[in-house]
Amino acid sequence: MTRYKAIISYDGRLFSGFQRQPGARTVQEEIEKTLSRLNSGKPVTIHGAGRTDAGVHAYGQVIHFDLPQTRDVEKLRFGLDTQCPDDISVVAVTLVSEDFHARYAKHSKTYEFLVDTGRPKNPMMRHYATAYPYPLDVEAMQEAIKDLVGTHDFTGFTAAGTAVDNKVRTITKATVEVAQKTGFLVFTFSGNGFLYKQVRNMVGTLLKIGNGRMPVSQIKTVLASKNRDLAGPTAAGNGLYLKEITYENELHTHHIRQ
Amino acid sequence: MTRYKAIISYDGRLFSGFQRQPGARTVQEEIEKTLSRLNSGKPVTIHGAGRTDAGVHAYGQVIHFDLPQTRDVEKLRFGLDTQCPDDISVVAVTLVSEDFHARYAKHSKTYEFLVDTGRPKNPMMRHYATAYPYPLDVEAMQEAIKDLVGTHDFTGFTAAGTAVDNKVRTITKATVEVAQKTGFLVFTFSGNGFLYKQVRNMVGTLLKIGNGRMPVSQIKTVLASKNRDLAGPTAAGNGLYLKEITYENELHTHHIRQ
Repeated sequence: MTRYKAIISYDGRLFSGFQRQPGARTVQEEIEKTLSRLNSGKPVTIHGAGRTDAGVHAYGQVIHFDLPQTRDVEKLRFGLDTQCPDDISVVAVTLVSEDFHARYAKHSKTYEFLVDTGRPKNPMMRHYATAYPYPLDVEAMQEAIKDLVGTHDFTGFTAAGTAVDNKVRTITKATVEVAQKTGFLVFTFSGNGFLYKQVRNMVGTLLKIGNGRMPVSQIKTVLASKNRDLAGPTAAGNGLYLKEITYENELHTHHIRQ
Repeated sequence: MTRYKAIISYDGRLFSGFQRQPGARTVQEEIEKTLSRLNSGKPVTIHGAGRTDAGVHAYGQVIHFDLPQTRDVEKLRFGLDTQCPDDISVVAVTLVSEDFHARYAKHSKTYEFLVDTGRPKNPMMRHYATAYPYPLDVEAMQEAIKDLVGTHDFTGFTAAGTAVDNKVRTITKATVEVAQKTGFLVFTFSGNGFLYKQVRNMVGTLLKIGNGRMPVSQIKTVLASKNRDLAGPTAAGNGLYLKEITYENELHTHHIRQ
């Protein structure tokens, strides 16, 4: 048995999210169907690092899976890439040691959130950025977003009724800037893990701050109170991208000579 | 009667092109339906500067139309923009003199053609760039593309059986470069008019030159021979953008005080 790690990117628009679920088109199911075809019809289960929601995109989702044989990784990448549906691309495949687990191996994730602030919006980007055609004070958001960096209890920024007990997470980077060429607003968040809908709730709160309908201190207030009702609305999933995942123990991900 | 000029952008993916045709969804029909709603149900005909094909996108298509009243142009722009389908945006509306005609007034058009040269392709851009995952000599294309600039008979680059008699056109700018952020290949063409499928045939030929399957001199050969069979294949429409239209007599397009 050989374990493989793969980096995949996908357009989330036509998926009901990453994770397999009955009666819905998911990224996991499509990749598993393709891998099974490449494995003489025998089923293959994949494990993803992050379970992105419906409509959420990925440039650097990481998965792992096992196959009975050790294969040429570039041939496997090419076969998977060309046989997967058009809205999934396979960026890289590497051999990893058998104790590597895409989800449980320690890693840092980076999410990006794109906001089209144009009046009118760019129609080509309507599924790939969230439209927000209202006045925004970028400096106010840049001031407020700093309060998210560090180790905090993010209860106030997750969906009510989230099953996870421990809601303490560490954010190592949180920035917002205006992209030079497109004029789009780009939010970037890196950290050791994010709760369900956390990024979208943080963005929704920051947009309300930028629009002057919440004070710059609101991030601190939500963190201290742990009260979801004090945060802004959940921003739409179409602006969210799982950008990159970096594993702490890079040995896992080193290419093993065949 | 008041004449209006509008700049519109659209995602060509779900349109059978710009021009109205029975039984097909077109940009013209959608805008005319919306304008009719804003005109108490009375029909309004629009005239577009360029008739883009199925799948071709636009950032700066120009149209003109007449309404019985003189309206506030920003209110009209906002109403049109919000009531048009999601894949059409109305960028600007201005009042113009009654002798302005989007198509017949002298103008220069700029087209852009995006090529995703990535292996694998970017799945988010699959409808917005043409994938070409093969080796390309950018310098060879940069050398060859210069031969397109100037006044030439472009018969060899148009679709066979094109109805237009005079196939002489002037190209004032023709460049190809690698976009810094995306790594995409960006072709740009400006000129006083383009024949049916001309841009896509020029790009198809340049890609064959870049891939080493045609000599750098092939552009000259096609121009001199006027033989379509010597040009490369027609590049797919999904990479093509009508970027900008500039009218010679800017007086037409000046905002007229109400």
